[in-house]
Amino acid sequence: MKTLGEMGEHEAIRRLVGGLGSHPDLSVGAGDDCAVAHSPCSDFDQVFTSDPVIEHVHFLPTHAPGRIGNKAVGRVLSDMAAMGAHPQWILVNVVAPPELEMAFLEGIYAGMSALCGRFGGTIIGGDLAQGKQLELHLFGTGILPAGTALLRSGACAGDLIFVSGPLGCSIEGHHLDFVPRVEEGLFLRESSGVGAVMDISDGLTTDLRHILAQSGVGAELDVGRIPKNGTLEQALYDGEDYELLFTVRPDCAEALIEHWAERFGTPPACVGRITPQPDKLSLSFPDGRVSTLFDKAFEHFSGGRV
Amino acid sequence: MKTLGEMGEHEAIRRLVGGLGSHPDLSVGAGDDCAVAHSPCSDFDQVFTSDPVIEHVHFLPTHAPGRIGNKAVGRVLSDMAAMGAHPQWILVNVVAPPELEMAFLEGIYAGMSALCGRFGGTIIGGDLAQGKQLELHLFGTGILPAGTALLRSGACAGDLIFVSGPLGCSIEGHHLDFVPRVEEGLFLRESSGVGAVMDISDGLTTDLRHILAQSGVGAELDVGRIPKNGTLEQALYDGEDYELLFTVRPDCAEALIEHWAERFGTPPACVGRITPQPDKLSLSFPDGRVSTLFDKAFEHFSGGRV
Repeated sequence: MKTLGEMGEHEAIRRLVGGLGSHPDLSVGAGDDCAVAHSPCSDFDQVFTSDPVIEHVHFLPTHAPGRIGNKAVGRVLSDMAAMGAHPQWILVNVVAPPELEMAFLEGIYAGMSALCGRFGGTIIGGDLAQGKQLELHLFGTGILPAGTALLRSGACAGDLIFVSGPLGCSIEGHHLDFVPRVEEGLFLRESSGVGAVMDISDGLTTDLRHILAQSGVGAELDVGRIPKNGTLEQALYDGEDYELLFTVRPDCAEALIEHWAERFGTPPACVGRITPQPDKLSLSFPDGRVSTLFDKAFEHFSGGRV
Repeated sequence: MKTLGEMGEHEAIRRLVGGLGSHPDLSVGAGDDCAVAHSPCSDFDQVFTSDPVIEHVHFLPTHAPGRIGNKAVGRVLSDMAAMGAHPQWILVNVVAPPELEMAFLEGIYAGMSALCGRFGGTIIGGDLAQGKQLELHLFGTGILPAGTALLRSGACAGDLIFVSGPLGCSIEGHHLDFVPRVEEGLFLRESSGVGAVMDISDGLTTDLRHILAQSGVGAELDVGRIPKNGTLEQALYDGEDYELLFTVRPDCAEALIEHWAERFGTPPACVGRITPQPDKLSLSFPDGRVSTLFDKAFEHFSGGRV
């Protein structure tokens, strides 16, 4: 009899998801940024995601409510960005202790609405219940042309690996104030040669390992080219960057970088390439040294984050 | 500066929802059992709902995990039943302390999957995070022909009021073991003369008041005809019955009762009628006495439930 703490988040999820059913309209189940289902009688697929934002895990009681709201909606929109989907509907379950100031909760909603308004998502419902700590549970749907969702399983050996912006030190404020890469995700869906896409929530190496596992490939990261907000270790392991991590066929990379820069200003950074050996993740240093990377994944139940 | 406890759940929700945006595809926003949106490029509407199930509020740690799972999915499917929708996709956010036994969580998932399987819902994703108490946050979508959703706003003066089964004493076990009235909801959507529909989660009088408010009508309950599991007070005020509460045009009632009984065995009980005076709720007793009802709504933040 194992407890959740002994088992760890990822193994627990694997076991719970293993027992779930399937459905002919469901093209992607649990395990990507969003699940993907075909909308009946239409040319669209719909994506579904849910994210908790919990006091003392994802924010502190001293943080401004508008920033907490931004993070709550931002996490959901970032998952949709990683699929290349247009944000659609959002529901919010709030759990709160009775002594919480109503004005604080209204500040959270103002932050959520502001970010929704910017990217076309609409909050349409939810629930409010009593609990020991403040929590927000956001559920979101997005929409995109049928069969075009950007998946974690799309990387091929030889693909170049990109990140949409600098990594690390998110704890200094970025994790509350980030702007989800919704427009960049839509751009990637419409670009040629894009392989795997996901958002970086648990850290570059942890999240890259998801792409490797689901695509059946390996990767070599070119350490000198990773855009950093702090040290290399922070860029490799810190979570909550909410940048996009994606792979592009080498023959399409130049055009993609150019169009990206025209559209968004700063070009994405090429930080490595996909290699054939499954699950092997190497670091290549500027002095020519190459070392295989120690796996230091962030897991809930084995350490807090904020 | 008011706290949530001072304001109460319903007023807090009204204030939070008042600040939300609108959308041309959204036909029903917050305030019904589900939100309703038109599926782009199709003949279908989609309904959306979310429900928390929280330790010490909706269940106790001593309850069997399969029953907790049944309740969690049942609440979502009951909301869909109240719209007349076919269950579609479900996501589950779990919050749990690290010392929770994995086998307990697997038992909850087994209970959720069993009820989903019975009514065609599919669990497609979610999240697992650490917190002080065990919570499940379920998010569900359902589908139905465009423009046919059963709303709380559909009651007209003269309509007869029905409940789908006996009320009260849900705390003795029904609140964990109930079967959501999905098939009855689909039946009502396809029947003639059906006005307002909702599920009874907060108690007959509290929930009937939602129909009155949204339909701009009043009601007289015929006390002697309310099917009860305990006392009259329990039938009027206990929550978590998850029966359907609905109104039917008098000229359609006889046929509906007959077809319902053919299909489901026991006929629904006629418990009163809709009256013209907005928000007035009266009780009519077998001895001819009529009294206007004291409003004793269940509110989170002003008392626990389990």
